[in-house]
Amino acid sequence: MELWFTEKQTEHFGITARIKRTLHTEQTPFQKLDMVETEQFGNMLILDGMVMTTQKDEFVYHEMVAHVPLFTHPNPENVLVVGGGDGGVIREVLKHPSVKKATLVEIDGKVIECSKKYLPEIAGKLDDPRVEVKVDDGFMHIAKSENEYDVIMVDSTEPVGPAVNLFTKGFYAGIAKALKEDGIFVAQTDNPWFKADLIRKVYRDVREIFPITRLYTANIPTYPSGLWTFTIGSKKYDPLAVSDDRFHDIETKYYTKELHKACFVLPKFVADLLK
Amino acid sequence: MELWFTEKQTEHFGITARIKRTLHTEQTPFQKLDMVETEQFGNMLILDGMVMTTQKDEFVYHEMVAHVPLFTHPNPENVLVVGGGDGGVIREVLKHPSVKKATLVEIDGKVIECSKKYLPEIAGKLDDPRVEVKVDDGFMHIAKSENEYDVIMVDSTEPVGPAVNLFTKGFYAGIAKALKEDGIFVAQTDNPWFKADLIRKVYRDVREIFPITRLYTANIPTYPSGLWTFTIGSKKYDPLAVSDDRFHDIETKYYTKELHKACFVLPKFVADLLK
Repeated sequence: MELWFTEKQTEHFGITARIKRTLHTEQTPFQKLDMVETEQFGNMLILDGMVMTTQKDEFVYHEMVAHVPLFTHPNPENVLVVGGGDGGVIREVLKHPSVKKATLVEIDGKVIECSKKYLPEIAGKLDDPRVEVKVDDGFMHIAKSENEYDVIMVDSTEPVGPAVNLFTKGFYAGIAKALKEDGIFVAQTDNPWFKADLIRKVYRDVREIFPITRLYTANIPTYPSGLWTFTIGSKKYDPLAVSDDRFHDIETKYYTKELHKACFVLPKFVADLLK
Repeated sequence: MELWFTEKQTEHFGITARIKRTLHTEQTPFQKLDMVETEQFGNMLILDGMVMTTQKDEFVYHEMVAHVPLFTHPNPENVLVVGGGDGGVIREVLKHPSVKKATLVEIDGKVIECSKKYLPEIAGKLDDPRVEVKVDDGFMHIAKSENEYDVIMVDSTEPVGPAVNLFTKGFYAGIAKALKEDGIFVAQTDNPWFKADLIRKVYRDVREIFPITRLYTANIPTYPSGLWTFTIGSKKYDPLAVSDDRFHDIETKYYTKELHKACFVLPKFVADLLK
């Protein structure tokens, strides 16, 4: 018997991956959670039928969410990750020696639990003494925070299910309030091939709140279209104006200081979405 | 009944696309040729079970094959396309007013015929008076040519079936001979996620023959991993040294003069392949 997992990334298109075995399957209070072992990409975390991360390509997403804002901010000390229960963004955040505290607010504790068990090289840093893990609603956490964080990363699922609030203008306003006066945030904002309207809307919303708003991309083979976008809102620091001496050596597989700037150079049809 | 076409891009991973209908299917002397109408990407040309091009995303590949070398060469007049029977690269080549002659050498006449019928917006420029279409073996055409072309583009299928000769060092040596003394060539060289060894081998082979060798990437959602590479070999002109006044306006949806340079900034794991 051959087992294949197919994600319909749109109504009409998807990816399919051969499965060695199902490691875990559960309906949590928030979503359907599956962990499978694939032949191509190693263990794969799936939420509500959508690939969240895999052992083989997770480094792209996690590095690109973390290092672009963290190298843009001159001295990030207090960092918040909203979502990201697999722990991959936290792992990257901790590579920056300036960071004194990294808080993870994940709504679904089962994601954390299951990632620790089946994705240990991703989730392993969640027990670091600099990390505080809160199982809580990220939207509410942001609403209650004020002038607290240097950098906030929104590592959410798609804007369906538990993450729907995390793509609203009210949420971005809350983030601005939760950030210090020179704070910066980044959010994953899906792909330009199938979700052009979402990217356009988020970009416009963020631009009304943050003086510096920019979009960058990365290639993630298990995500729809393979081309992922991230939207940055910054109160003071421009990711394109980072001077070369700001970069220090960290171990990466995707991010480089050259890519830090090149990833903002957009294909024309993507740049056109932002006009 | 739902019809889905699935391409196994590796033994363990693939894409799947909902099909409205099959437009054409045929075993040519060289390969299996299918043309289907998909819901997501419009008409799709499939050779030996592999997606070659689709109406919705073809612009990425065709623009990036053509414009990077053509804007690198200061005065491309005589251009050769090896393969590329769908006509997309030729269409882009003709956007450069310096081009006096563009020759297409495609081994399989059925690809041309079927593309003209079902992909007219891609193949439509094959009847332009500046274009000469030869149904012939590209390897042999190169072997017989000497000091003739300013720019050569190798728009081949994967290195299985009819294209296997087009990934050999002997072929690249033939290309060097077929080019003028300041000529430049580009070849599609697959993706770094599943075909790292191929990219490494081609890069090393080309570097032994051409003084300037560079790799660049583009995002193509219907190609394996979504991240495609192109390898350039150049006798004189460096694509990274093109001065800004060289670029003239052409209509594109992906390529921009900023991307001309940014597309050479590689993710670390890709750059590491070339060391």
